[in-house]
Amino acid sequence: MKNSAILLVQCPDQKGLDAAIAEFIYRHSGNILRFELHQTELDRFYFARIEWDLSGFQLDVKDFPERFAPIAEKFSMRFRLALSSYRPRAAIFVSKFDHCLVDLLYRQRMGELKCEIPLIVSNHPDAKRHADFYGIPYHTIPVTKETKEVAEQRELELIRANHIDLIVLARYMQVLSAEFIRDYPQQIINIHHSFLPAFVGPKPHLQAYERGVKLIGATAHYVTEALDDGPIIEQGVARISHRDALEELVEKGRDLEKVVLSRAVRWHIENRIVLHGNKTIIFE
Amino acid sequence: MKNSAILLVQCPDQKGLDAAIAEFIYRHSGNILRFELHQTELDRFYFARIEWDLSGFQLDVKDFPERFAPIAEKFSMRFRLALSSYRPRAAIFVSKFDHCLVDLLYRQRMGELKCEIPLIVSNHPDAKRHADFYGIPYHTIPVTKETKEVAEQRELELIRANHIDLIVLARYMQVLSAEFIRDYPQQIINIHHSFLPAFVGPKPHLQAYERGVKLIGATAHYVTEALDDGPIIEQGVARISHRDALEELVEKGRDLEKVVLSRAVRWHIENRIVLHGNKTIIFE
Amino acid sequence: MKNSAILLVQCPDQKGLDAAIAEFIYRHSGNILRFELHQTELDRFYFARIEWDLSGFQLDVKDFPERFAPIAEKFSMRFRLALSSYRPRAAIFVSKFDHCLVDLLYRQRMGELKCEIPLIVSNHPDAKRHADFYGIPYHTIPVTKETKEVAEQRELELIRANHIDLIVLARYMQVLSAEFIRDYPQQIINIHHSFLPAFVGPKPHLQAYERGVKLIGATAHYVTEALDDGPIIEQGVARISHRDALEELVEKGRDLEKVVLSRAVRWHIENRIVLHGNKTIIFE
Amino acid sequence: MKNSAILLVQCPDQKGLDAAIAEFIYRHSGNILRFELHQTELDRFYFARIEWDLSGFQLDVKDFPERFAPIAEKFSMRFRLALSSYRPRAAIFVSKFDHCLVDLLYRQRMGELKCEIPLIVSNHPDAKRHADFYGIPYHTIPVTKETKEVAEQRELELIRANHIDLIVLARYMQVLSAEFIRDYPQQIINIHHSFLPAFVGPKPHLQAYERGVKLIGATAHYVTEALDDGPIIEQGVARISHRDALEELVEKGRDLEKVVLSRAVRWHIENRIVLHGNKTIIFE
Repeated sequence: MKNSAILLVQCPDQKGLDAAIAEFIYRHSGNILRFELHQTELDRFYFARIEWDLSGFQLDVKDFPERFAPIAEKFSMRFRLALSSYRPRAAIFVSKFDHCLVDLLYRQRMGELKCEIPLIVSNHPDAKRHADFYGIPYHTIPVTKETKEVAEQRELELIRANHIDLIVLARYMQVLSAEFIRDYPQQIINIHHSFLPAFVGPKPHLQAYERGVKLIGATAHYVTEALDDGPIIEQGVARISHRDALEELVEKGRDLEKVVLSRAVRWHIENRIVLHGNKTIIFE
Repeated sequence: MKNSAILLVQCPDQKGLDAAIAEFIYRHSGNILRFELHQTELDRFYFARIEWDLSGFQLDVKDFPERFAPIAEKFSMRFRLALSSYRPRAAIFVSKFDHCLVDLLYRQRMGELKCEIPLIVSNHPDAKRHADFYGIPYHTIPVTKETKEVAEQRELELIRANHIDLIVLARYMQVLSAEFIRDYPQQIINIHHSFLPAFVGPKPHLQAYERGVKLIGATAHYVTEALDDGPIIEQGVARISHRDALEELVEKGRDLEKVVLSRAVRWHIENRIVLHGNKTIIFE
Repeated sequence: MKNSAILLVQCPDQKGLDAAIAEFIYRHSGNILRFELHQTELDRFYFARIEWDLSGFQLDVKDFPERFAPIAEKFSMRFRLALSSYRPRAAIFVSKFDHCLVDLLYRQRMGELKCEIPLIVSNHPDAKRHADFYGIPYHTIPVTKETKEVAEQRELELIRANHIDLIVLARYMQVLSAEFIRDYPQQIINIHHSFLPAFVGPKPHLQAYERGVKLIGATAHYVTEALDDGPIIEQGVARISHRDALEELVEKGRDLEKVVLSRAVRWHIENRIVLHGNKTIIFE
Repeated sequence: MKNSAILLVQCPDQKGLDAAIAEFIYRHSGNILRFELHQTELDRFYFARIEWDLSGFQLDVKDFPERFAPIAEKFSMRFRLALSSYRPRAAIFVSKFDHCLVDLLYRQRMGELKCEIPLIVSNHPDAKRHADFYGIPYHTIPVTKETKEVAEQRELELIRANHIDLIVLARYMQVLSAEFIRDYPQQIINIHHSFLPAFVGPKPHLQAYERGVKLIGATAHYVTEALDDGPIIEQGVARISHRDALEELVEKGRDLEKVVLSRAVRWHIENRIVLHGNKTIIFE
């Protein structure tokens, strides 16, 4: 297994940034595996993701923040260090449609998703047998208008108790409260079954069917308080025709949603995503 | 060259429709080449496109409407007969961006678009040299708020004088008046440089850039009085990333727009498109 | 559920075919839902798939062959009648890689694949738990050079005992004997993990990696005695780059293989595939 | 216009490479715009493309090789420096099919291809009017078995006289001699109208048609002495069906070939391609 460190950096663009970072890593005998930059044109901002091999690295990663601080200060950097050996802990929220859940569980088992999944939450009991198959605790927490607040409390407790790093809404048909969302900025990924910003809100397949589009879409995005308006991580489309009834849109949508959501989750847990305003930078 | 007739039929669905049509064609010694149906689920409507070889067909196509009338009446059909030997006459409207124009002219010359192009209209003189290269009359008709009505009058005269069957808005940056549009129902095709219904209106690439989508689109549609809301004929998308500046969206958009528009024009002139409310049925 | 009949016809092309078929169905009060033709250009052959609603059809489908015989004879037709109410019985063969198996089982449960799956055969026990999850009998039949003949005998017995209509090789890593294959013409579908005819034979991903292609592929085809050379049903590709190591090719290949194989199986069980020499006609 | 320098480096992988390069550029006040690495897994080789802004760079680029030599020596680097302000000089070779030629000329005029095109060579006069339209010298040099050697001599003279950096075979139907090819290593790009390695050699569309594939392809590659076996730069595919006659494959192929070839040419002239054995690394 790869044992590497990933440094995510953002700051105003200026000369010498790359040299300073590369030199720091080299000084401690790190071998850089990936060095990716992105400079934004208008506001001249600098984003970078640097990954290096930790075998032979002569600095204890615990001391990294302190040692790197002078460089960070000099360049007014915000930075974050992640270790490839750490497997983020993801909770999956699901309702009755279980295709994304099943797909994520399978990919995790195959090693495509290098994360733990210690928790599945659903407002319905239907998907439990898949959780059982993979040996993952499954909590049925029904949600009605009246019980929503209590339900969210219970969910939040489970999330905290399980040290969850990432919440994946895998066709979870409930809208989370603003309070819930605020506690998990850039930590909740949702799959919306349309090509956003087309067909915001409920029943996007029906909206697409009625408008007569020739492609249907799916969009994975971070959840923010504005419905279906968070930073887009990944999108996909599939071709449809006049012969496709609504139920075929749903079917074709399933294949899309699985691929789009799993890719977004993967990039997140591999520390490849940085936010720039309401847009994502993906260091693929 | 193929010498065939194409019959487009629509009526309430009922038994015996196909038999009646096929038997009629056979009775006059026609050899059916394509027989395509579409039944709509909810309103139980029947749409068909039947193409048959005219070599050996023992009915003068001029007499077809009269002879077919009893069948049409029996089934309450609306029908339209087209001949593959007839090359529809298309006018192309263009502004300064000439990529779709150049693409259409080249495809027409290669035989991909079996139509005549006797007329190009533009509010700018820039694209004239391409018209000259292909030997097509090019009319520069500037449009301002004040001259719009007069300009449209001139355009309509040219369209009538040239017996135009189809108007292609190949990135023509002017909005046609409701009167103009009303005279040419299902005869004006526009290319909009977004994945409709996302990013309706002006500057869709800028809108896409600002929203941070991961795919850009293009949509060819029939023009109706509601802006960017007519029946969609074809759509396409291309992948973009955070690295693409606005100008790269424009560049990638060009390739999309060419392919999407030319496909829509082709289907139209090959009599493959039928309207069903605000949706298109494409007998590909 | 749709209760329809599907007639697949092939014969030399001639006038009156469509009329004769449509008239026959109408005479017995059938409402045609789909009428698809294909005429081949060079050898002037006619292929058709006609689907009609059986509600109100006044001929017992058991009597169809006899009643339709005069028409078939007149036009030298070969024909086959299938009922949408009949769920074909598919056996899945698998080795250790279980992604296609898991995908097929899920799709069958979701109703995308309208078939029964009464039998899974594998030369390894690994995938058994998935069979158990879906409640499908799983037979581990190890295959070595020495035991191959005996193993195949056992497989054939299971196939016969279970009245299997279709055998799906879902990444089954054994080559079936010519005798086995001969007994099931156009009834064995294999998924090959390359874009055939590129990279025939073993380790296609390694071959692709070494050649430095920019797209990897997957091909679903009917199995014939010539290795990887049977009629192609469906193909798909995915983009790769120099950054993808061999193991990433394998990962990206999995998504491809699932989609390509399941589509081929679906078309087969929906009676949409006709053979024309070594090529397939897919009435989608 | 961007005024930047691009450094392409390759050497055995070792620690400190990135630091040394970044520090060197920073020391001379260069602002790095892109820093892309690729390490190969098996043979542990390091490839990099570094692009930096030359405004404010305090080293005359003419002196770069000498000043950078100590670093290059220390790490056993092979390196190449290119300037974005230099527009490479491309010659286009074409036969009768002019779609790729017309496409390249249009893209060059639009600024998508930042190169000069001072020379078009063809064994037929047919495409001359397009050359005339864009004001580019066009040389008709017929090639027969007997005249091939003389013809190539004439071509080589034109190439030298025009200081050509890149030769683009835009559906040039002649095979160049081994001598010709040897003189221009990684400087000749060909478009082959199949998904290589499938359908090597003549008439790939016919081969594809006869095999019954469901996707056709196009491949842009560097020309080496082994026919159709050089390093692949880019590939694309398009969907076909049993309904597509050979001529439709040709038509659909045209759209593919244009896009695939123009992308390969663009990457080449933007100094994004590095060879690793018979494979390409594309720093997109």
